[in-house]
Amino acid sequence: MKRLLRTLSGQAVWPPPVWLMRQAGRYLPEYRAVRAGVKDFVALCTTPALAAEVTLQPIRRYGFDAAILFSDILMLPWALGHGLEFKEGEGPVLPKLRNAADVAALDPARVADRVAPIMETVRLVRAGLLAEGFGETALIGFAGAPFTVACYMVEGGGSKDFAAVRGMAYAQPALFQRLMDVLTLASIEYLSAQVVAGAEVLMLFDSWAGVLSPSLFRRHCVAPATQIVAALRQRHPNVPVIGFPRLAGVMTREYAATRVDGVGVDTGSDIGAVAAMLPSRMAVQGNLDPLAVVAGGTAMTAEVAGILSAMRGRPFIFNLGHGIVPQTPPEHVAALLELVRAG
Amino acid sequence: MKRLLRTLSGQAVWPPPVWLMRQAGRYLPEYRAVRAGVKDFVALCTTPALAAEVTLQPIRRYGFDAAILFSDILMLPWALGHGLEFKEGEGPVLPKLRNAADVAALDPARVADRVAPIMETVRLVRAGLLAEGFGETALIGFAGAPFTVACYMVEGGGSKDFAAVRGMAYAQPALFQRLMDVLTLASIEYLSAQVVAGAEVLMLFDSWAGVLSPSLFRRHCVAPATQIVAALRQRHPNVPVIGFPRLAGVMTREYAATRVDGVGVDTGSDIGAVAAMLPSRMAVQGNLDPLAVVAGGTAMTAEVAGILSAMRGRPFIFNLGHGIVPQTPPEHVAALLELVRAG
Repeated sequence: MKRLLRTLSGQAVWPPPVWLMRQAGRYLPEYRAVRAGVKDFVALCTTPALAAEVTLQPIRRYGFDAAILFSDILMLPWALGHGLEFKEGEGPVLPKLRNAADVAALDPARVADRVAPIMETVRLVRAGLLAEGFGETALIGFAGAPFTVACYMVEGGGSKDFAAVRGMAYAQPALFQRLMDVLTLASIEYLSAQVVAGAEVLMLFDSWAGVLSPSLFRRHCVAPATQIVAALRQRHPNVPVIGFPRLAGVMTREYAATRVDGVGVDTGSDIGAVAAMLPSRMAVQGNLDPLAVVAGGTAMTAEVAGILSAMRGRPFIFNLGHGIVPQTPPEHVAALLELVRAG
Repeated sequence: MKRLLRTLSGQAVWPPPVWLMRQAGRYLPEYRAVRAGVKDFVALCTTPALAAEVTLQPIRRYGFDAAILFSDILMLPWALGHGLEFKEGEGPVLPKLRNAADVAALDPARVADRVAPIMETVRLVRAGLLAEGFGETALIGFAGAPFTVACYMVEGGGSKDFAAVRGMAYAQPALFQRLMDVLTLASIEYLSAQVVAGAEVLMLFDSWAGVLSPSLFRRHCVAPATQIVAALRQRHPNVPVIGFPRLAGVMTREYAATRVDGVGVDTGSDIGAVAAMLPSRMAVQGNLDPLAVVAGGTAMTAEVAGILSAMRGRPFIFNLGHGIVPQTPPEHVAALLELVRAG
């Protein structure tokens, strides 16, 4: 069994498997070369040959233990018929979902067709890994968790405080729950299709879970993740799921109820303290500060040593606590891999 | 002894004392009327009659258990000679601190003169509270914690990810430590002067503590707060300090080492879970979601009930988990006060 899969089955594999969030990205010159040739980010995500190519680039360079499908968490609302545009230097821009009609306009029936190119990417990557001799590298598929996707749909993009989406959750609970239900069911189908196409692990990114009050966290982070994990486990009992309730802090303890196989930990948390809140066979993934990789040298070495020493003897996946940043020197990533593989 | 002070001395006063972060602010028509008549935000903070007036406005309307000096956490770097401008709709804009010369240019010797109007505001508010019959309302002085102030100085304003300041902390640790030391010592003098002018409680806002990795959190949030609390306690043994390491999550346990008298809890944390991490006589303050106050009605009632029931029997100060937002209907604040005072 591949090292990542063994870890997610509850074994303390050592040295730990390692991959990095956004490992396919702008810090790599070969990525920038591909990106320069396409019109926009959505086009890159829906052109299987290119999306597969950039997914494989960091594997060729570093031999990570996992490849993660190159895509975006907003491709699912896009497939549901919600608009999506990536503006240079501004991030994603979406129409602002406001009322029942906007929710009713989302069309789950069209998703399968629209995500067909993404499934083709999954197939190409899986075949590419084998063809290029990366038989030990596991392929991770993913989706944004319903709340985080709802954040972008209601706010119309990123936000400093996500006031509109939280306001809707408090003031229009029935409407917001309907939106969450649509996204939860669509996520199950979307993730399941990725498994059928070849994904061996699934990851659920709840990047904005941390802005939820405890009661809303239970209702809109823990409950939908629980439903998604249960449905996927029934259909694909051998495909583990990693949940990443970013910035959940002390609420991470309650996230264990989702029964995910692994929990992502963000940069701001002591990973040992988070691990102590979770069942001992639930894998933990994280949480090096991406800025420590930018700095490299002794700062990075010290941070890595701290994480490894806290996680030794536990099912653990080495990763960052947030996506790698564009200004990261690629040679620092190589040095990081050496540190992790020395255990 | 005033209810807030009794709570901060370790007593479980019930119903709990209550005040709200940013209680003097744009949601109040009487605040907007004053604000309309001044050139800019810095002018408002440095005009004692006006700053005192807006500090007292919410006390007159709601009879909160505490008034908090109307000022801004960036007035200290401004007093140190670092530039500061508030641009409409953009938030604060500062020169970007980059090197040793920028740190050397900060001039602690000029602080006392420049903050003199702020001390005059403290005196006016203290006298005003007495003159207007609010003898039970305690006056809170405050400062930004060194790391949060450094965030704005290095980033040149707010930031999505505070990459520049974290980058400096990793890559130029000696330079960053020098900046932190300057800010720590200046904060001690600044807070101490507020006590001399009449502040009865001090609060240290570490709004961006949550972006720090655990090792940086220990070095740049816990250590400076510990130093500030120790110095203030020596000079003013009867003036309690509330620390607010926002978004600290599981790291809040380590914040207890600062020996603050109270800990602010943000919106995203289960307040009972955070309280359980802290010594039982250390007061806890928080953490209603400001968006629940915007919604009002049953959503707000349920959230308040949850917090009160978790905190009953513990030294507790009812507050929000983040500043009140401008779109809050003032009558919802009145309803909130009724709920809290019914215990």
